[in-house]
Amino acid sequence: MTVLDNLAALRGLMRENGLSAYVVPGNDPHASEYMASHWCEMQWLSGFQGESGTVVVTMDRALLWTDSRYYLQAGIELKGSSIELMRESDVDCPSVVDWLSEHVEGLVGVNPEMFSVNDFAEWSEKVSLKSIDLIKPLWTEGRPAIPADKLYPYSADFAGETVESKIARMREQLAKKKANAMIVSALDEIAWLLNIRGNDVEYNPVVISYLVLEADKCTLFVDHAKLDSAAQNYLDFNRIDVQPYEAVFEYIRSLNGTVLYDGAKVNEALFEAVPEGCKKINTKSPILIDKAKKNAVELEGERIAMRQDAAALTRFFKWLEEEAFANGQTQTEWNLMEKLHEFRAKGENFVEESFGTIAGYKGNGAIVHYAATKENCAEVKPEGMLLLDSGGQYLDGTTDITRTVWLGGRIPQQAKLDYTYVLKGHIALQRARFPKGTRGNQLDALAKQYMWEAGITFGHGTGHGVGHFLGCHEGPQNVRTDNNPTALEIGHIISDEPGIYRTGQWGIRTENLITVIPAKQTKATTTEDEWLTFETLTLCFYDTNLIEMSLMTEDEIDWINAYHVRVYKEVSPLLNEAERAYLAKKCAAIEI
Amino acid sequence: MTVLDNLAALRGLMRENGLSAYVVPGNDPHASEYMASHWCEMQWLSGFQGESGTVVVTMDRALLWTDSRYYLQAGIELKGSSIELMRESDVDCPSVVDWLSEHVEGLVGVNPEMFSVNDFAEWSEKVSLKSIDLIKPLWTEGRPAIPADKLYPYSADFAGETVESKIARMREQLAKKKANAMIVSALDEIAWLLNIRGNDVEYNPVVISYLVLEADKCTLFVDHAKLDSAAQNYLDFNRIDVQPYEAVFEYIRSLNGTVLYDGAKVNEALFEAVPEGCKKINTKSPILIDKAKKNAVELEGERIAMRQDAAALTRFFKWLEEEAFANGQTQTEWNLMEKLHEFRAKGENFVEESFGTIAGYKGNGAIVHYAATKENCAEVKPEGMLLLDSGGQYLDGTTDITRTVWLGGRIPQQAKLDYTYVLKGHIALQRARFPKGTRGNQLDALAKQYMWEAGITFGHGTGHGVGHFLGCHEGPQNVRTDNNPTALEIGHIISDEPGIYRTGQWGIRTENLITVIPAKQTKATTTEDEWLTFETLTLCFYDTNLIEMSLMTEDEIDWINAYHVRVYKEVSPLLNEAERAYLAKKCAAIEI
Repeated sequence: MTVLDNLAALRGLMRENGLSAYVVPGNDPHASEYMASHWCEMQWLSGFQGESGTVVVTMDRALLWTDSRYYLQAGIELKGSSIELMRESDVDCPSVVDWLSEHVEGLVGVNPEMFSVNDFAEWSEKVSLKSIDLIKPLWTEGRPAIPADKLYPYSADFAGETVESKIARMREQLAKKKANAMIVSALDEIAWLLNIRGNDVEYNPVVISYLVLEADKCTLFVDHAKLDSAAQNYLDFNRIDVQPYEAVFEYIRSLNGTVLYDGAKVNEALFEAVPEGCKKINTKSPILIDKAKKNAVELEGERIAMRQDAAALTRFFKWLEEEAFANGQTQTEWNLMEKLHEFRAKGENFVEESFGTIAGYKGNGAIVHYAATKENCAEVKPEGMLLLDSGGQYLDGTTDITRTVWLGGRIPQQAKLDYTYVLKGHIALQRARFPKGTRGNQLDALAKQYMWEAGITFGHGTGHGVGHFLGCHEGPQNVRTDNNPTALEIGHIISDEPGIYRTGQWGIRTENLITVIPAKQTKATTTEDEWLTFETLTLCFYDTNLIEMSLMTEDEIDWINAYHVRVYKEVSPLLNEAERAYLAKKCAAIEI
Repeated sequence: MTVLDNLAALRGLMRENGLSAYVVPGNDPHASEYMASHWCEMQWLSGFQGESGTVVVTMDRALLWTDSRYYLQAGIELKGSSIELMRESDVDCPSVVDWLSEHVEGLVGVNPEMFSVNDFAEWSEKVSLKSIDLIKPLWTEGRPAIPADKLYPYSADFAGETVESKIARMREQLAKKKANAMIVSALDEIAWLLNIRGNDVEYNPVVISYLVLEADKCTLFVDHAKLDSAAQNYLDFNRIDVQPYEAVFEYIRSLNGTVLYDGAKVNEALFEAVPEGCKKINTKSPILIDKAKKNAVELEGERIAMRQDAAALTRFFKWLEEEAFANGQTQTEWNLMEKLHEFRAKGENFVEESFGTIAGYKGNGAIVHYAATKENCAEVKPEGMLLLDSGGQYLDGTTDITRTVWLGGRIPQQAKLDYTYVLKGHIALQRARFPKGTRGNQLDALAKQYMWEAGITFGHGTGHGVGHFLGCHEGPQNVRTDNNPTALEIGHIISDEPGIYRTGQWGIRTENLITVIPAKQTKATTTEDEWLTFETLTLCFYDTNLIEMSLMTEDEIDWINAYHVRVYKEVSPLLNEAERAYLAKKCAAIEI
């Protein structure tokens, strides 16, 4: 079957069902960032293999919305498909729903499993949606099954809290809102609540499942094939009922009373299954909120993972400096990604990468979501700038670090200035002290003020929340320009990653993970406020050759020197003598 | 009639009308900050004379909510009234509506003129409101009339735009939203749109009125007594129909089609008059939005007013330093306020103060909304700290400035530190460069970062919007911690006024007005963004004796020196020789 055949078949079904359009968004039923190939309906229908996109099919047109990362790829892959490319990063590109409301009269079909309740409601204000899955009857051949990898218990020694305790806390939340049941569909929330992990999704150690929590029951909807006897015993022991994955809809149809759900996460199909008579409360998931506040054991695990990660990075950078280009050898971005993986994979409790490594050499570093492939990547020589953004999933915790290094040759003055603006902002955020109640968007300018003064800014967030041996990106906290109402709280982990990107020249990003901790009240204080600050979790040296020292304050230099002392102290015990000597050199004190 | 009599009479009316409670908020029908005494129903009913409060009366209780500024005063004034004081600044004090929803079954009466549409809707979610005015039939004796002061045209030479042009712009907004009419009740919005001013309200040169704008008509609802023949001719010439103030309700009842209103400003009574058949669009007032973006003439007027204001302040500070305490004299806070008024009142085009001057000596400076009275104010000696926050309404524009000065004696080190943290933040905000689209709440931390580092913060906003010969406080822009979605735009004026308050010791606040201007693109830029920065409008020296120089960077010192050069250059032409010599001394360059 070609894309043209698929579109024709889809239009046949649309006609049968009285639809004027059908929409296939690049989502899965769990609002996942990384999804199983079973749900890659957008890719199957369009032939476009990018990770993000939405297909709209009407009787006479077919269109694919995707962002600027994929314009080139989409242009190639859509050839001959009759599908028009909608460049959604362009200022004048209408959103999918606005396009629909302008061009389509009549019903727009969507699979409600692929829409959050909130998105479905928002679209419904502009177009007439009909819930219907037209891909299932069409995509019958070669559709990958839902992953059936094993579920495994995640020890409370790592999680720092028993399932019993977590469930009890959530039941208190239910009681407080006078709710009888809560529907949970976000995979990391289920994994956190039940202290389980799995291998169903790349980069995220989660288990494909749904969960319904009630005052006297906790039901996990999961494929039985995932449960070996240890897993089954674990769930039995914790009084977690198991039902088949698909049984969730029937189960929800039997609920009564008040039902809690997070409309930003729970899909419309689940919501539509809630009986009419139920009272429905759309609220930010209390699991999401609690999961973000790491406990002492989780934080200690993060610190352990950070040392492992730093040892791997130290070894990698040593290899890069001393061996990679020996005897006139060159490397490729792909080689570097593989080499870094090799070092990281040797770390204790390493499970997998926490996202696809970004190795961006020279101008490639300026492409924010650059992903080198084995076939398509730059040759790397001992000269110019390399941006390296990578992270690991360890049983102990999740890491995410970016360092930008100069590989050789004369450093352009603008490169030093850019590196230093980024570094000063990166330090300012880590050093911030602020009263309890402060949101990430209030601190964002601290990381940008120096580059702003030079007329430079960047388009991505300054910081995202990070999970504990879970998603490398999690909410609700972040440091962005948008109006996220979430205040930073003790135990939140966020990244601190300002950047400067010069098209065709270089990309510079410097990223640590940091966690919110209490700050001591000063003697000079005038208020009763609780004060907060950050502890830096990541442990890797900066490329001090790139620092324009004339821009640095004494406080900033003191901060770097103290950080480097700490890096050496914490990481050197994991290294051999030669590696220690290398690290000592990289951590040498700098002076104005 | 005593308060007890009034309450008894009110309860009688409540019983007749089947009400369980009646609420009298301290509002007027125009959502004004400063209101005419005609509308001081809260004060009349309770006997409490503070400027802010809400009275709730039930059959067996009466309560007054007010904030910490007024606890003492309310305690005294409520004695014997049977009214309980609700301390609304206390963390555990329920809001009025939450209290009502917990304690009152049945109907809660309110005068819908005293509630914005949005507040009424919010309250309605928690209690059963009934629109009814029970104060009018009770407050018959001695109730002040609605002010009948004259309306006068405000020349386009000051306003920078004709009424015709402004109305045409607003009609475009109506057309864009396919609306037939817009209801306007905010007095500064009416004054701005029609280029009129008046004297109905203290500190704000506005005219008590309503306005309805339609595609082919513009109707001002205003007491005819306010219109002399010049005013009548002006309105006729601009094709503005005039109807009596009270006729607005009948007029609104005759509207049809789509009606636009700003639910944050328009009162519920007006809204209830809109016919059922009309489509109603609740939207941020387009007048509010346009009024905030000052045109070139308005900004030039602000600059003229600032020079007048600075000359008055220079003379005041010279008098304070050289004469006020001569021969062992002392002063009072009230004297200082009067003296400052004297100097300011001599300024060209001075009309009145733009708010009640705050002269806070020593510990009184730490009381954020301190208001000295003639009878109740501190004696001021040539020692310690004085905070002075004041402003003027000039035909050319509105000013608002705070300076904190040391009157004599040894300066405590903490005072210097506090002054310097405030000053560094105050400078950082003025110097900020930021991309278009940045909101005030994103810049707030720039003004706080230095005091935060020392564990100090303050509870008021860092900056409020300022009108042009209109309200000293206006929206939609501001610099606060809350989630105001308004981006800063070219022509916005805001205050920049961080502060540190030490109970019983001193208050330090330093305030300039600044306006958003385009910033030149730098050569180093990496983006197509439009860049913005601020121009400082206020022109008055800082007390450099209070600066702890070791905390200052070279850039900050350069900024102060350049500012002082500009202050001298712009203000000295208005001064006599002795005053110029004084100003030159105050503006002398500082060095590390």
